[in-house]
Amino acid sequence: MRIAVLGVGLIGGSIGLAAKRRLGAEVCGFDPDPAAREHGLERQTVDRMEDSVAGAVEGAEVVFCAAPVAALPDLISRALAASDQEAAVTDVGSTKGTLVQAVAKPDQERFIGGHPLAGAETAGVENARADLFEGARWYLTPTERSSGVLYDRLQRTISDLGARPQAIDAETHDRLMATVSHLPHVIANVLVQQAAAASAEESERLPEVGPSFRDTTRVAGANPLVWGDIFATNRDAVAREVEAASERLREAAELIRSGDAKRVGAWHGAAREHRRRLLEVDLAGGELYELRLSVENRPGTVAEIALALGRAGVNIEDMALYPAPDMRTGAVSLWVAGDDEAERAADIVRGLGHNVSVSR
Amino acid sequence: MRIAVLGVGLIGGSIGLAAKRRLGAEVCGFDPDPAAREHGLERQTVDRMEDSVAGAVEGAEVVFCAAPVAALPDLISRALAASDQEAAVTDVGSTKGTLVQAVAKPDQERFIGGHPLAGAETAGVENARADLFEGARWYLTPTERSSGVLYDRLQRTISDLGARPQAIDAETHDRLMATVSHLPHVIANVLVQQAAAASAEESERLPEVGPSFRDTTRVAGANPLVWGDIFATNRDAVAREVEAASERLREAAELIRSGDAKRVGAWHGAAREHRRRLLEVDLAGGELYELRLSVENRPGTVAEIALALGRAGVNIEDMALYPAPDMRTGAVSLWVAGDDEAERAADIVRGLGHNVSVSR
Repeated sequence: MRIAVLGVGLIGGSIGLAAKRRLGAEVCGFDPDPAAREHGLERQTVDRMEDSVAGAVEGAEVVFCAAPVAALPDLISRALAASDQEAAVTDVGSTKGTLVQAVAKPDQERFIGGHPLAGAETAGVENARADLFEGARWYLTPTERSSGVLYDRLQRTISDLGARPQAIDAETHDRLMATVSHLPHVIANVLVQQAAAASAEESERLPEVGPSFRDTTRVAGANPLVWGDIFATNRDAVAREVEAASERLREAAELIRSGDAKRVGAWHGAAREHRRRLLEVDLAGGELYELRLSVENRPGTVAEIALALGRAGVNIEDMALYPAPDMRTGAVSLWVAGDDEAERAADIVRGLGHNVSVSR
Repeated sequence: MRIAVLGVGLIGGSIGLAAKRRLGAEVCGFDPDPAAREHGLERQTVDRMEDSVAGAVEGAEVVFCAAPVAALPDLISRALAASDQEAAVTDVGSTKGTLVQAVAKPDQERFIGGHPLAGAETAGVENARADLFEGARWYLTPTERSSGVLYDRLQRTISDLGARPQAIDAETHDRLMATVSHLPHVIANVLVQQAAAASAEESERLPEVGPSFRDTTRVAGANPLVWGDIFATNRDAVAREVEAASERLREAAELIRSGDAKRVGAWHGAAREHRRRLLEVDLAGGELYELRLSVENRPGTVAEIALALGRAGVNIEDMALYPAPDMRTGAVSLWVAGDDEAERAADIVRGLGHNVSVSR
């Protein structure tokens, strides 16, 4: 099987590595940036590197376009023009509606949009890995014009790369991503903006910001290039979600101002339950338990805990460290899936002399 | 010196331990819950445990009221009635305006509100530690009626406990806390609510939620008892902040819908800068650098990294683990203060065979 990868960064490079290793495919690459071509070859992400789209796609059965979202429409149309009439062409962009609409109708038979949910935290071909997509959801957005044969080939290829393909229509994809990914980014930006404004208004300095502020704003201003493209290409869905959140906040303000303790309590408790349910969808190992403990924030403390859990085969699903203002002590939250596992983890941590509280 | 602690949980117990160890004070405790009295004694958080407020405050120079916010007005008035006319009475509640107003005018000479920014992540006397307040900001809210002698004694006592006392008027305190702590909690609740609503509307299942959703909603539905009291006693300031955030989101929606890439980019970039500045206020060791790396999420990997950094004396200021959907791989972000330290940390992690990208 022959695969072409256009754009050899983190995602393109990882597709190349996985296709070579897991599919035994012959992988041909192209990147508009000569330095990226060189790095991609050095890292052996492809078998051959070409200096043109046409060279790379020749004879390929599946063509992956792995450029930034803004560059995709042009790259995809060049890939469609240069590739065999039997080749499936796909992409890996974070938004799908605008892109699918931009593809000429006759080309929609061979172009099927895609979006792997992987790699968002790092970038660059130097982080490419053959197992980047292992177990990851990979959305495909076929339309009524899509070739059944090519869709079948594409979804099998993606499954062979180790991912879990799922068809979804482009608009639904964009709306769902707006809710669980794009909106949190906008909210983080707004929170930071508001705190900065308060800090400017007050003659007093802002109080040391707590862990809630750290967590809630962690993604503020994330990767400006990527996010500029996402906001641009999914702007209607994102704007709608942001407006809905604005309205919900207005309602929350009213509720809090009313002082109705019972309703406030019900609203707050429901949030706790909702979050648990939403996150548990992801977990194989059962319900999520949180272990909280206070530790000295000296080098080695967290390691000692993680290592002891590791030796016992307990997997840490999620983790957060909240340093105290002095940076010498802090609280650690560890999330562990399954109640037996949580109990075992708590025993181990207690054995190291820490006080642990466990909650669902 | 004699200290009274009314309410022997995490905060009260830690005050007792610190007062015994660091001030060499004689500490007398009271808790309305007989079991809490027993645990407090077992943990040696106090020298003596009394079964009445009057017994505990007898002869005390400083009385700490460490009950839940809703129970404070009553506890404080009992403490004021029973204690010496020379005793300072203070509390540790998360909100201050409502409380300070509830204290009878003549009593305001001896009552000075307080709020240590510590211990929010855990609860219970079993987590009490003598060093809980080490380096922590401890707000005091004196009024024009406060006795100068008692304020001086109180702030010296708090400083001797290891904390950093700072005077602030009660209204400003509540407004600032609403911005950097209470608002993020409301926003987390609203985000979760919105995602749950989307999940119910869509026939498709919600996509696996990403790290941005995890981070932004980490505090959703946190500790319902504590947060019910906070929303109740700081409702005007919280409602105002939530309304302001609602308005900012409305503006953000407009901006995103406009598709003005330049203005969107400026807004997004400003968020990045604001967050850095707001968080750096906390750090002693210089600017914060983020190290990102992909790792196998097998037990032991994170430990190996943390341990190697620990051996080299590098301190991890903050940390986030983003498991991939398969839970077998994941991305790790580590925050390290100071550029030399960040470079050294990156070298160490690279030495373990990981690819690391460093950004400010």
